Amino acid sequence: MCGNPAIILSSGGIDSTTCLAIAKHEGFSPLYSLSFDYGQRHRYELTAAAQIAKALRVAEHRIIKIDLRQFGKSALTDAIDVPKDRPAAQMSAGIPITYVPARNTIFLSYALAWAEVLELRDIFIGVNAVDYSGYPDCRPQFIRAFEAMTNLATRMTVSGGRSLRIHTPLIDLTKAQIIRRGADLGVDYRLTHSCYDPDEQGRACGRCDSCLIRKRGFAEAGVADPTVYQS
Amino acid sequence: MCGNPAIILSSGGIDSTTCLAIAKHEGFSPLYSLSFDYGQRHRYELTAAAQIAKALRVAEHRIIKIDLRQFGKSALTDAIDVPKDRPAAQMSAGIPITYVPARNTIFLSYALAWAEVLELRDIFIGVNAVDYSGYPDCRPQFIRAFEAMTNLATRMTVSGGRSLRIHTPLIDLTKAQIIRRGADLGVDYRLTHSCYDPDEQGRACGRCDSCLIRKRGFAEAGVADPTVYQS
Repeated sequence: MCGNPAIILSSGGIDSTTCLAIAKHEGFSPLYSLSFDYGQRHRYELTAAAQIAKALRVAEHRIIKIDLRQFGKSALTDAIDVPKDRPAAQMSAGIPITYVPARNTIFLSYALAWAEVLELRDIFIGVNAVDYSGYPDCRPQFIRAFEAMTNLATRMTVSGGRSLRIHTPLIDLTKAQIIRRGADLGVDYRLTHSCYDPDEQGRACGRCDSCLIRKRGFAEAGVADPTVYQS
Repeated sequence: MCGNPAIILSSGGIDSTTCLAIAKHEGFSPLYSLSFDYGQRHRYELTAAAQIAKALRVAEHRIIKIDLRQFGKSALTDAIDVPKDRPAAQMSAGIPITYVPARNTIFLSYALAWAEVLELRDIFIGVNAVDYSGYPDCRPQFIRAFEAMTNLATRMTVSGGRSLRIHTPLIDLTKAQIIRRGADLGVDYRLTHSCYDPDEQGRACGRCDSCLIRKRGFAEAGVADPTVYQS
């Protein structure tokens, strides 16, 4: 039990929730969770992140409002149709259109600002290079470069002390391995939200890339999928 | 005349305005200027940035609203008193209390997002390591680390093409040298705003660190100071 405070980026999905559970299991305390209201087309993931913060008893959960819609070019923030029923081979080819420009760079920059204010040195992000290899800012080399930059960016490191560390405990895990790890730690995946295109009751479509990856993850993990789908 | 498009971070102050004039002089075109409404205690610098964008005929000027007040700890966003009439030696000792946590990291991250959308590869920031040596995120080594990170962060660089470059034409210049360079390029410094604590008419206090550095810069440059001071 390390007893160091940490910030965890929390999207309300499977990965960040498992990441939070891992930070807690490793003894980081107190925990601070950080979510972003970046003009998502729906709010269910923010509701999920708040419920997860409560369930995992984080000390403070903040939602930062940022406007990435101003820069457009993503199906997650624009009125572009979310692709449905794509075969796995097509999903993994190239960068998905749901990619938001520089999203993780911006998210980690805010985490850095909060870390500096809280004077803490550990940030967790649930990025994963296996199932989301299309996103450039989910790659280990990006995370290491961001970490190197943070150690030159802040007052803390200027005034001495241990370097800041960006923890990515999921980086080499498949979705199935993530779910199995989370299930072992007692994560209640009913609280999580993955769907890019839920209905008005927040029920998952079951057909977007995110739903398909989630479904396959539960199946491969041999863990019962608690998600409520539209059909 | 290079003819490449570029984004310039513009605060409405002397440094970023000179930086914009240099980018224009070097032939970057079209130019895009980016300002941030980050809960500053006054709005005069945003008005200045908009007027400067117009005067220098940038193709597009965007103001991004971000909320750094949520993280607090700076006299620029909190209700801490702005220090006045400090001698130069005191100003340059340590990191000023007007430092905003991770500010340049966050600003550059947004510039990166916009660069990715515009598919351009040149970003200008008027940081300066001489007169503001107290800010960790104004140092050359921070800028180089940020640049290294950007080249792993975005779709552009994944799909090939020239690396992104963060230009810092002022990094080694004193305030007097910056003003002389800008004056040579015809910059109208009346449009710029530096004061941390202006009155209701937007007139500079003449006594905060920023005003004192500005005054001394004009004096040392041998350029008439066009600033309207309160007294």
